[in-house]
Amino acid sequence: MTLSTATSSVRHAAFDLLENRVSRLPGSRLINRFIIALIVANGVAVVLESNPQLYVAYEDFLVAFDLFSVVIFTLEYLARLWAVSEHPRYHGMSAIRARVRYALTPLALVDLLAVAPYYLALFIQIDLRYLRLFRLLRLLKLSHYFDGLQVFATVLRREAGAIAGALMIMTVLVVISACLMFTLENAVLPGHFDSIAQAIWWAVVTLTTVGYGDVVPLTFGGKLLGIVIMLCGVGTMALPAGILAARFSEELHQRREVLLARIREALADGTLDPEEEASLEQLQQELAIPAGDLARMIRSQQAWQARHRYCPHCGSSLPP
Amino acid sequence: MTLSTATSSVRHAAFDLLENRVSRLPGSRLINRFIIALIVANGVAVVLESNPQLYVAYEDFLVAFDLFSVVIFTLEYLARLWAVSEHPRYHGMSAIRARVRYALTPLALVDLLAVAPYYLALFIQIDLRYLRLFRLLRLLKLSHYFDGLQVFATVLRREAGAIAGALMIMTVLVVISACLMFTLENAVLPGHFDSIAQAIWWAVVTLTTVGYGDVVPLTFGGKLLGIVIMLCGVGTMALPAGILAARFSEELHQRREVLLARIREALADGTLDPEEEASLEQLQQELAIPAGDLARMIRSQQAWQARHRYCPHCGSSLPP
Amino acid sequence: MTLSTATSSVRHAAFDLLENRVSRLPGSRLINRFIIALIVANGVAVVLESNPQLYVAYEDFLVAFDLFSVVIFTLEYLARLWAVSEHPRYHGMSAIRARVRYALTPLALVDLLAVAPYYLALFIQIDLRYLRLFRLLRLLKLSHYFDGLQVFATVLRREAGAIAGALMIMTVLVVISACLMFTLENAVLPGHFDSIAQAIWWAVVTLTTVGYGDVVPLTFGGKLLGIVIMLCGVGTMALPAGILAARFSEELHQRREVLLARIREALADGTLDPEEEASLEQLQQELAIPAGDLARMIRSQQAWQARHRYCPHCGSSLPP
Amino acid sequence: MTLSTATSSVRHAAFDLLENRVSRLPGSRLINRFIIALIVANGVAVVLESNPQLYVAYEDFLVAFDLFSVVIFTLEYLARLWAVSEHPRYHGMSAIRARVRYALTPLALVDLLAVAPYYLALFIQIDLRYLRLFRLLRLLKLSHYFDGLQVFATVLRREAGAIAGALMIMTVLVVISACLMFTLENAVLPGHFDSIAQAIWWAVVTLTTVGYGDVVPLTFGGKLLGIVIMLCGVGTMALPAGILAARFSEELHQRREVLLARIREALADGTLDPEEEASLEQLQQELAIPAGDLARMIRSQQAWQARHRYCPHCGSSLPP
Repeated sequence: MTLSTATSSVRHAAFDLLENRVSRLPGSRLINRFIIALIVANGVAVVLESNPQLYVAYEDFLVAFDLFSVVIFTLEYLARLWAVSEHPRYHGMSAIRARVRYALTPLALVDLLAVAPYYLALFIQIDLRYLRLFRLLRLLKLSHYFDGLQVFATVLRREAGAIAGALMIMTVLVVISACLMFTLENAVLPGHFDSIAQAIWWAVVTLTTVGYGDVVPLTFGGKLLGIVIMLCGVGTMALPAGILAARFSEELHQRREVLLARIREALADGTLDPEEEASLEQLQQELAIPAGDLARMIRSQQAWQARHRYCPHCGSSLPP
Repeated sequence: MTLSTATSSVRHAAFDLLENRVSRLPGSRLINRFIIALIVANGVAVVLESNPQLYVAYEDFLVAFDLFSVVIFTLEYLARLWAVSEHPRYHGMSAIRARVRYALTPLALVDLLAVAPYYLALFIQIDLRYLRLFRLLRLLKLSHYFDGLQVFATVLRREAGAIAGALMIMTVLVVISACLMFTLENAVLPGHFDSIAQAIWWAVVTLTTVGYGDVVPLTFGGKLLGIVIMLCGVGTMALPAGILAARFSEELHQRREVLLARIREALADGTLDPEEEASLEQLQQELAIPAGDLARMIRSQQAWQARHRYCPHCGSSLPP
Repeated sequence: MTLSTATSSVRHAAFDLLENRVSRLPGSRLINRFIIALIVANGVAVVLESNPQLYVAYEDFLVAFDLFSVVIFTLEYLARLWAVSEHPRYHGMSAIRARVRYALTPLALVDLLAVAPYYLALFIQIDLRYLRLFRLLRLLKLSHYFDGLQVFATVLRREAGAIAGALMIMTVLVVISACLMFTLENAVLPGHFDSIAQAIWWAVVTLTTVGYGDVVPLTFGGKLLGIVIMLCGVGTMALPAGILAARFSEELHQRREVLLARIREALADGTLDPEEEASLEQLQQELAIPAGDLARMIRSQQAWQARHRYCPHCGSSLPP
Repeated sequence: MTLSTATSSVRHAAFDLLENRVSRLPGSRLINRFIIALIVANGVAVVLESNPQLYVAYEDFLVAFDLFSVVIFTLEYLARLWAVSEHPRYHGMSAIRARVRYALTPLALVDLLAVAPYYLALFIQIDLRYLRLFRLLRLLKLSHYFDGLQVFATVLRREAGAIAGALMIMTVLVVISACLMFTLENAVLPGHFDSIAQAIWWAVVTLTTVGYGDVVPLTFGGKLLGIVIMLCGVGTMALPAGILAARFSEELHQRREVLLARIREALADGTLDPEEEASLEQLQQELAIPAGDLARMIRSQQAWQARHRYCPHCGSSLPP
């Protein structure tokens, strides 16, 4: 075995440990859990450090913990970068090109942002306050471990136009409500609602139904306008979230339909051979469907088949 | 009739009284209503006892009522445990094994928790305050009587991964919002937002749209950030509930589809014989669909059939 | 023409004027609009009367207006009661039995409640304050004129079990949250959260996301518990409304499907004869679908048919 | 080339620049972006002007900017009006009739309202305060550029009856809640909830879950009533938005189905000739579906076809 094949097989093992979800090695699970725990601990540390007493008391420990985290996260980032050329997605590319491609994905950028400020701070003076904020970005590394986020990102990207439109409508609604209220309240009670900026704060707080109560219309006209704005506006502001939830739910539904169609095809000959099973599992992972759901869907399809003769293509049963 | 057959038939009657929903004995309904009333009365008693004046005035009665409730609930727990070996789900198991299995289900654990603290307090000194909290757990015994909860639990279990992901996103959103707001507000107005803990309280109160108004950003920068957090964050926080509602609604829809498919099969020969009717009723109960809905679905299917010749398998009508 | 036929034809005209939606007489529209205006005016009058200055200034007018309203509403009630025997729903019953049946429907009871307190007050002394509240019930008479309410009522009735379950879960959630918070806050800060009743008020205000801010946890433990309650509870409380909205939307969808199936049948022979049209209109009214939607659905079905040869039963097109 | 043909071709170019979405000229994009930027800048200017200091400091610039905006928007309005006779929708009408028709569409009225107050103010004295409000209407010009709004408007128009019903229910709910609360609170604590108007303000603030906390029930009875109103009313108020979101999502779904059916027809012969592509693009624009979605749908349909023999009419695959 030459050096290059040895490297390649180590790299493949590293890839399996860090990224490959199909062949779940026992070590892979352990490493992933350790990194998740470290990310959460970093979040907790930032929150605790903001307490000056705690920071003074445990400064040495916290600094050491930060150094330890940066080392681990740096090693993780480099290992991912090095091993990613094994990813089937970059199949047929040169290793360098695969790595550059990967380094520009959002997930890899988040990994870089998680450690870069630490190294930057060695050269440039950065206010500790802002350095802490950057350390919070490490929490975003958690997105490696939640497949559902991928579905969410797909829906968001596909509905980007609709979301932009919704934010536009919201902004116009807020500005018009704020200007109307400013005109009414300020005209009757000078000093109250003393700028459109304050009226915008009121409008956002009201239309999102947060309703702090720190700024409230006092005049009869202002309250009347407020009632109209609340009754009409609150529903309008709730629409985008409702539509997005419906779209998201539909996306999940369609993904299950795609998997179900493939299960039907695989079971059309009455058996599920290992090759078909592997192909179903890969599809299940691409679609970010929980593994338990695949097993449940196969079982229920088999149960159905046992009771009926059915059309192998549309799934509707046939007369005996 | 030997003793063992007598025991067995008493046990079967007990099972029918307490658990069996299909053969609703007249006594079953009475017993269930009495226990529901007792559970509700226990909840009311805990609320009333918290008032020291009421507690002093009616102490004897309340203590007696508590003793009475514990006795009833203990008898109920033991009766359920004893009779459960008749449950079709545990068919073919030894009686002991069936009881151990049942004792570990969430419903049985709730029943145990409803009485265990009382007995524990006979041996160990427990603060009255906490003892009352445990008595509140008796309210959870109500879950025996609402079939809809079963559907809800199924959806929750199936979507556990999605819910965990949503809680993770929420937590990250809250922590990042809180740290940004803490940095901005505390830098300009020292003393305001004086810890990240307080900023987290603000972030949760704001992002859930509760909006008490006890902590509110005061600086221009803080309000600007607050506006961005409200406009973007509030929708994000509302998504999980929206998605869960859509899933829940879909689950209910699918259960009706399953029942409808079976109704079509049963009516394929034009009549509904008693055996088919019993099988439909059992399915209706397994699926936690209200009994009235089954009757309505059968009627509308029969009406449809009367007007059309139709394909007995997919339900679409055929040309004459 | 004998007297009885004359009575009968007058009664039929009265029925057409008041209740029949299909043969919309020109007078029917006018009468309905007048009654709607009178109902709204009654609502406005109750609100204005609550202002003592306005009441004193316009007492004579308001008393006269109330008398006028009661007379009109009484005549309307009696006319509806008298004419309802013409309703196709009560076809084949004796006139008396039809009227008793109608008098017990929710709509007729609302009509009765709208005037009964006035007559009752002539005999018994009723506090003016409560008399006004009863007059507000006249607003419910508006339900005669909104077909959508019928769909809403159908969904509510069909989902009554689910709604009862949801209210039960909400109540348990509220009581448990309240008792936990009472125990935590009251133990640390005696005097704060000084009864479970107050804690229940806090829990309802928080879990519905109203968030007045009049009662707020102050201790660290209380705030931590509050965060958990808000993050988990707020979504749970929003679920029932989300599910109900989904069900309602599905009911509307199904009603359209039923109408569409009938339109396809009617158009299967390529033409829409007047008899078919009348039957479609009646179905459209039974299903509470707007008349404009029926016209639109017929047009789009005809356009589709012009472009395709299609299966007259399932609507899928056929190969040429 | 005669003058009239020259005019006609210039007019056609103007139409292409301003309105035609299919043949996106490079200049069209530039002009649209410039106008969008100008609209947004006008919104910002109105907000900034409300600050007296800023207004005094930059008065000359702001007045000049307003003049500039009015000139551009007037030119835009006239150009659209002149060019609109080229629009396929008005094909076969005389140019004058097409322009009058267009001038009465909501979009054209918004364009007119954006500039008309400026010209009006040259003749009549209008309070600067209200003039500013009219200038805010320029923000509505943004609706030219968001296709999603068209879908939204369609849903709103189609569901107008349901929305009117929902607003009616809301109003009745608010008035009844307010009167009940007024009667309860005012009877026990005179001076508190001292008019139904204030009780209505409380009811709207509560039922929309805004919850400022400026008016809050204080008596035990008032709080009990408040709890009932919150638990039942809050869900009811959230229903209309939920139903509207579901309808909106269904409308988007149906539009995609229509496009998909046309894609299937176009691909039935296995190829997509340019004529079919143009017709699909036009449909995609009529339906306000993003262009990227059309491409994606065509690709996925082609991929499906490559794997299956399928029925060209219903899309279900056929046995080999």
